[in-house]
Amino acid sequence: MSNDWCEIEKVAKSWIYEAAQIIKSSFASSIHIETKSNPNDLVTEVDKAIESFFYHKIKEAFPEHFFLGEEGIAEELQSLKGTVWLIDPIDGTMNFIHQKYNFAISIGVYQDGIGMVGLIYDVMADELFHAVRGKGAFLNEEPLVPVKERPVEEAIIGINARWLIEGRNPYRNPLSALVRDVRGTRSIGSAAIELAYLAADRLDGYISVKLSPWDYAAGLVLLEEVGCRASNFQGDRLSLLEPGTFIAGKPHVHKEIISLYLGEDH
Amino acid sequence: MSNDWCEIEKVAKSWIYEAAQIIKSSFASSIHIETKSNPNDLVTEVDKAIESFFYHKIKEAFPEHFFLGEEGIAEELQSLKGTVWLIDPIDGTMNFIHQKYNFAISIGVYQDGIGMVGLIYDVMADELFHAVRGKGAFLNEEPLVPVKERPVEEAIIGINARWLIEGRNPYRNPLSALVRDVRGTRSIGSAAIELAYLAADRLDGYISVKLSPWDYAAGLVLLEEVGCRASNFQGDRLSLLEPGTFIAGKPHVHKEIISLYLGEDH
Repeated sequence: MSNDWCEIEKVAKSWIYEAAQIIKSSFASSIHIETKSNPNDLVTEVDKAIESFFYHKIKEAFPEHFFLGEEGIAEELQSLKGTVWLIDPIDGTMNFIHQKYNFAISIGVYQDGIGMVGLIYDVMADELFHAVRGKGAFLNEEPLVPVKERPVEEAIIGINARWLIEGRNPYRNPLSALVRDVRGTRSIGSAAIELAYLAADRLDGYISVKLSPWDYAAGLVLLEEVGCRASNFQGDRLSLLEPGTFIAGKPHVHKEIISLYLGEDH
Repeated sequence: MSNDWCEIEKVAKSWIYEAAQIIKSSFASSIHIETKSNPNDLVTEVDKAIESFFYHKIKEAFPEHFFLGEEGIAEELQSLKGTVWLIDPIDGTMNFIHQKYNFAISIGVYQDGIGMVGLIYDVMADELFHAVRGKGAFLNEEPLVPVKERPVEEAIIGINARWLIEGRNPYRNPLSALVRDVRGTRSIGSAAIELAYLAADRLDGYISVKLSPWDYAAGLVLLEEVGCRASNFQGDRLSLLEPGTFIAGKPHVHKEIISLYLGEDH
């Protein structure tokens, strides 16, 4: 059965706005926080409730679709066959807890591994970045224009300072060289928002030493529509099932950073 | 002659909204960009026009007041005697040029060196952070609450990644240790916005190896109202006439970072 992607985008948007209201109303009460892999890897009952909200909405509306979410509510996926929703219910959980600002709902819908719909909603800024494959990307109602190239030395790159001081990070030295060479770096603390910013020409690239499919699934759809590229540090296709290195950027910026800083010979 | 600080805040607000319209309308035409101290130290004719706009408004309304602005339109100040307006017409010029987002108008009004009025307007987010000494701080119409303390290891600190890789920066090692120890770091690319975020509890501290008085003059007034501290890296009072090291934070975070990382013995 084939999907109507514009209709799926429309339905997903309405769920996103509904979920955003639940998230905002959670600020009124104190939020229970747990840690995951380390003391700074946080999750709240709100992340879990929002993932559950989307899971049940999708299962009800599209029982044949699959679901991959950050909080692991659904069965583990072994492949991307069929229609798969890749969801981060709250991307930037640390910001959600500490700042009550700069966090996003991120939803990517894929068909046999190809990104068809991408939505990133910056809840507090009320900015919905969205795209359907082949139909262009938008920020709220405004179309996003195809990206304009910029030399690496004039680029602003989204990258977290932590990657520059982490002794175990094998990319510490090339990333430090890159930070020295570019015009500036920024760190919002939400990969989804930073990818949306790249699509909206607020950044020229975004780099993470470890990113998960639900962090970038929606972003990839937006980036494709504005002519940006994304890959792992070797320039290979992203797995969409496993976490790994991640670099996205305007085509020239993406290519130069891989060949001059991150590629196999470095 | 004594000043009515609430009236000055009101007048400054109306000028800020007027200036913001001028800035936003500048996006319609291409903006001429020059470099200052280095290829990444940028200024545009919009920065200069907005500084000129404030200079003339102030000179007309308060001819006896003094003026210190980033773009140097006014006479150089030798002291902070009398009433002084410290203005950054566009804080985050690189963001203004590249992102058309995340830049601010920053205005601090001081009386004999004491901050009386502070206004930071994040133009694109339409967030006006403002305070009159002794009357509390506000984000638009909402009062900002006195800060809640947080241990350093749970703190989110605003700091630019560049300070961690700059060989000539004498604070590179202690700042790297700090970034390793805190919960997270962020970098918006506008000191004024980051100080406003600190006042609004979106950050727990903000650090720069070199900051100028117009970057932090407004922020200091906001921070004072919510119970935050600011100083140079030695814990001494900020000069307000010369650039220098800068650390602001919640009292415990501010004190611990100086004593454990940045202070004289390190």
